[in-house]
Amino acid sequence: MGDACRAVDDPVRNIRLTIEYDGTDYAGWQVQDNGRTLQGELEAALASLLREPVRITGSGRTDAGVHALAQVANFRTSSLVPLRGVLHGTNALLPRDITLRRAEVVPADFDSRRSALEKTYQYFVRRADTPSAFARRTSWWVRGAFDLAAAERAAALLEGTHDFGAFRAAGCDAAHSVRTVREVALVPRGDFLEVRVRGNGFLRHMVRIVVGTLVEVGQGRRSAASLTELLETGDRGRAGVTAPPHGLFLAEVRYDVAALESCP
Amino acid sequence: MGDACRAVDDPVRNIRLTIEYDGTDYAGWQVQDNGRTLQGELEAALASLLREPVRITGSGRTDAGVHALAQVANFRTSSLVPLRGVLHGTNALLPRDITLRRAEVVPADFDSRRSALEKTYQYFVRRADTPSAFARRTSWWVRGAFDLAAAERAAALLEGTHDFGAFRAAGCDAAHSVRTVREVALVPRGDFLEVRVRGNGFLRHMVRIVVGTLVEVGQGRRSAASLTELLETGDRGRAGVTAPPHGLFLAEVRYDVAALESCP
Repeated sequence: MGDACRAVDDPVRNIRLTIEYDGTDYAGWQVQDNGRTLQGELEAALASLLREPVRITGSGRTDAGVHALAQVANFRTSSLVPLRGVLHGTNALLPRDITLRRAEVVPADFDSRRSALEKTYQYFVRRADTPSAFARRTSWWVRGAFDLAAAERAAALLEGTHDFGAFRAAGCDAAHSVRTVREVALVPRGDFLEVRVRGNGFLRHMVRIVVGTLVEVGQGRRSAASLTELLETGDRGRAGVTAPPHGLFLAEVRYDVAALESCP
Repeated sequence: MGDACRAVDDPVRNIRLTIEYDGTDYAGWQVQDNGRTLQGELEAALASLLREPVRITGSGRTDAGVHALAQVANFRTSSLVPLRGVLHGTNALLPRDITLRRAEVVPADFDSRRSALEKTYQYFVRRADTPSAFARRTSWWVRGAFDLAAAERAAALLEGTHDFGAFRAAGCDAAHSVRTVREVALVPRGDFLEVRVRGNGFLRHMVRIVVGTLVEVGQGRRSAASLTELLETGDRGRAGVTAPPHGLFLAEVRYDVAALESCP
């Protein structure tokens, strides 16, 4: 990793971080008055390492209790600490439930939020007769029979460009509710059902309401066809419950901006 | 599950439990004066459900911080609570990091410890450049190059019947240190190396010292052939470090005693 991790010549570097976190003990991504946040812990660790105030821009917020395998954030710094030092030094200062997986120097105009082309979320539903001591923090335990084929038919109806107004939390401040969902895949993995949702943008709680509604279809509590009605009426009151946050992972944020340097 | 979970006629039932636990926050299996224990929490939950004192016998102790996917314990009860009630009722009363996966009625002479034929442990070594927010409680993070072939040659030398005196913690109270290890398998799984150890019995810290020693071989800090010397001399001072407890799982305890009834 030696050469790939050296410092660049430009005195102000724009650094992109890929971040993994267990969101269980956090009040969400965004800095707020009450409670520990991911952004707050990251900014504090970076500021301590780089000996200057640091403000990071995330690809988007994640709610309290939601996890990330690869959240992306960027910040600008005039510090001369090499990229390898940023990666390992920050990891040494962060709480153990937050880790940097990669640090990259990117072009000056890269912005984690505005440059994002697509996001992928994974949600883990655990279908089993008894609870799990290990999966309790990272999946939603749902008991009883489950009609996977019906849930798959419902999922297929969500793919494409639609008004997702019915899948939007009260308090969502997006200007409009039309989004393009490129994939809603249901992938059985042993005791787990992974719900993978990929799209160009998401409304507040959208993935969790999608999962809650698909689970109701799987449990036979609503029809697959009812999804069409939800997309047409935009009535949040008719959609399913909001699945709990602890089953949700921000899995990938896609960009077409290549790194100038990367570590590792 | 209805019929399979009904109560039996014998007024005193011998009940075998299969238990999963995240040992992170426990002082180990066995009841002791200081700290929460797995045995203590299980006995308290069962006593509360069955409204009688309960004393459980585990297949063996696990150390502080060690996990189990399928620890086995049994207890005798004259309670008439059906097996299904024992399983789900106890789960409702237990802390969320302990769960019963199965409850069975077994013959009166079954004893979790004395009837055990073989145990399998799994140890997860995480080989990666950066730490993991999710695997931190359940694996040992080891950085740097790793010679898997050398570690495999060393592992093969441990299989068979040997005096494992060099792989035994101070304070181990076993009468002698000869054990039969039927398998020491190194299984790469993505970022992880699973070390699976199967045998008829284990000395105190034996699996963790085996893993610590194999990791030193993988890191090039000792030769594979040095394992032969360890088995011959029985000198604990020459063996490797004791791997930390949080990577270790009791994965299976094998018996040839069939259940009379089972739930699920």
